[in-house]
Amino acid sequence: METAEINVQASTHAYSIVIGEGIRKQTKQYLTKDYSLVWIITDENIAPLYLSDVLEACSPLQVHHTVIPAGEQTKSIDFYYQLLTEAIEHNLDRNSLLIALGGGVIGDLAGFVAATYMRGIDYIQMPTTILAHDSSVGGKVAINHQLGKNLIGSFYAPKAVIYDVETLFTLNKKEIRSGYAELVKEALISDELTFNSFLQTELRTLSKTTVKEHILKGIQIKAHIVETDEKEANMRKYLNLGHTLGHALEAQLGYGTLTHGEAVAIGLLFAFHVSKSVYNNHLPFSELKQWLKSNNYPLQLHSVEPQAILAKMKNDKKNEQQNIQMVLLEQIGKPAIESITDEDMLYYLSIFERKLVNE
Amino acid sequence: METAEINVQASTHAYSIVIGEGIRKQTKQYLTKDYSLVWIITDENIAPLYLSDVLEACSPLQVHHTVIPAGEQTKSIDFYYQLLTEAIEHNLDRNSLLIALGGGVIGDLAGFVAATYMRGIDYIQMPTTILAHDSSVGGKVAINHQLGKNLIGSFYAPKAVIYDVETLFTLNKKEIRSGYAELVKEALISDELTFNSFLQTELRTLSKTTVKEHILKGIQIKAHIVETDEKEANMRKYLNLGHTLGHALEAQLGYGTLTHGEAVAIGLLFAFHVSKSVYNNHLPFSELKQWLKSNNYPLQLHSVEPQAILAKMKNDKKNEQQNIQMVLLEQIGKPAIESITDEDMLYYLSIFERKLVNE
Repeated sequence: METAEINVQASTHAYSIVIGEGIRKQTKQYLTKDYSLVWIITDENIAPLYLSDVLEACSPLQVHHTVIPAGEQTKSIDFYYQLLTEAIEHNLDRNSLLIALGGGVIGDLAGFVAATYMRGIDYIQMPTTILAHDSSVGGKVAINHQLGKNLIGSFYAPKAVIYDVETLFTLNKKEIRSGYAELVKEALISDELTFNSFLQTELRTLSKTTVKEHILKGIQIKAHIVETDEKEANMRKYLNLGHTLGHALEAQLGYGTLTHGEAVAIGLLFAFHVSKSVYNNHLPFSELKQWLKSNNYPLQLHSVEPQAILAKMKNDKKNEQQNIQMVLLEQIGKPAIESITDEDMLYYLSIFERKLVNE
Repeated sequence: METAEINVQASTHAYSIVIGEGIRKQTKQYLTKDYSLVWIITDENIAPLYLSDVLEACSPLQVHHTVIPAGEQTKSIDFYYQLLTEAIEHNLDRNSLLIALGGGVIGDLAGFVAATYMRGIDYIQMPTTILAHDSSVGGKVAINHQLGKNLIGSFYAPKAVIYDVETLFTLNKKEIRSGYAELVKEALISDELTFNSFLQTELRTLSKTTVKEHILKGIQIKAHIVETDEKEANMRKYLNLGHTLGHALEAQLGYGTLTHGEAVAIGLLFAFHVSKSVYNNHLPFSELKQWLKSNNYPLQLHSVEPQAILAKMKNDKKNEQQNIQMVLLEQIGKPAIESITDEDMLYYLSIFERKLVNE
């Protein structure tokens, strides 16, 4: 398989995202300078599978590694401080490199450590999930506060992203679905052709070539948006398509009932539903729903009351004003932000569950 | 008194530093946009003196304030997390403003909160010490790790700096000395004329006009360096003039025995001393020493052994390589970085104490 490379222009520097098969074994050739020391942070699920490959691929550099538990609970102030302690004890200096080997949690946590250790050291992301393609562009790093997700963080771009598609074939089905929902979201923001090509993919029979192409496409779309608007002022908000309901569902049901992407998938259908009311347009609601169904996305609201969902939507940090600002689609490839009153939102929610289950 | 204004170009945005008399009472006019909410962080020494003025000057905006204990111990992970909790509880969003009212500790801590709350919100510095002029340019914000000072932080520039010179006249003598050492350092990096004008100042009889001019000059010099080199790669290292010995003394004697500036003052004389050996030049060692003495700077090494000082120098996070990289002066206004072997450093230190006390 040929290796693909995308160049991303962050506000601070340019970096490459390399996507290929088995490239974790060539880590060293993607390092952008001579580092005094390399420190790999990974989790206990990933370590037995890929850590030794990466350690070997960094030879003969001096390398330390830290394996933390798998799961969102490590995105905490305590794990953060503990990792900083390790950085100091390993004598990491400004000429050291941190490698985040894992999914979104590892990327966010290790990225925030890199962003704030000695006011910032270089780091490289090696994503091992499809969903992590999303965080490989845009430089968002964060940990959770006990009062809310991702409330502590910064914008800090990696020096490179090394995306080995081989590592994606140890993912379980839930994780594949979760990642693909964000890819479909990006296709919807981009253009109809891309969206249609996604709808022709069976997640059961995914090939390495297809997943590589889809990730490449998703990253290109996101990179284009992020480069145009790095600080989430306007255009970047389009990337929240599907997230108004998605985040609210995640928060309401408790993180873990639905994966992030599964919640976003429902949120995409909801965005279609509201868009139709607002613009009186004809988006392929049934087609998307059919694809999600046939790929086993769980399509239900678990009987959560519209009032409860609305309350969670208003909690979301991205809503600064009174009314909820929601990303809709005037048509595929043409997102827009609309202000939705509480009354309207409750109405949309009240008829959406039926539409989700029956139509 | 006329208000002076300096425009600083940070890597992310431009901002103004305004220096004047009583301008804390005009805070609102320096806000650069309509903020949903203002949150003032200050300490228990400053609050009784100036908080009510600033609160009043923010009217009719919605304002919260938090008063924390005075002193370096608040630059900790625990106070940091506690402040983030307050930010969430006060419902600060991305359209809120944080004001850091106080000296360097408040600026560093509150600045790091602003840098990392929701991936960054706007903040304004209102320095109440002379020393804080130094941190009002360059965007360095940080907290301490239990294993070392300022090890956790980032580069995050304020939206404005409002420097009210009136607030500097409640400083004690130690604090004035501490601030002036950094001003003298900046003069030495800049040019002989500026340095000589500083040597003509009696700290006992400082006027508001003089302190305003000196701070203005110091900030201009620092801003010029920082704009040229925002990420401390090369030129910015010149600002460490006097800090090789200064930091080591602070660390060795325990923070608090000497103020930061008092330690830097001794470090400046040491830089003269080493420069003379390296370049065989003629820097005004006696003149600077005389000025420091007549302004009551404590000029002694407290009999710390050269070996102990060297060990602390090598601990400093700014020394990446084996040899110590020290900022010297080829002449006034012409700093340079030289690599000093341990052997040479021990020799320089061994004869410096005598020179400090006797010459």
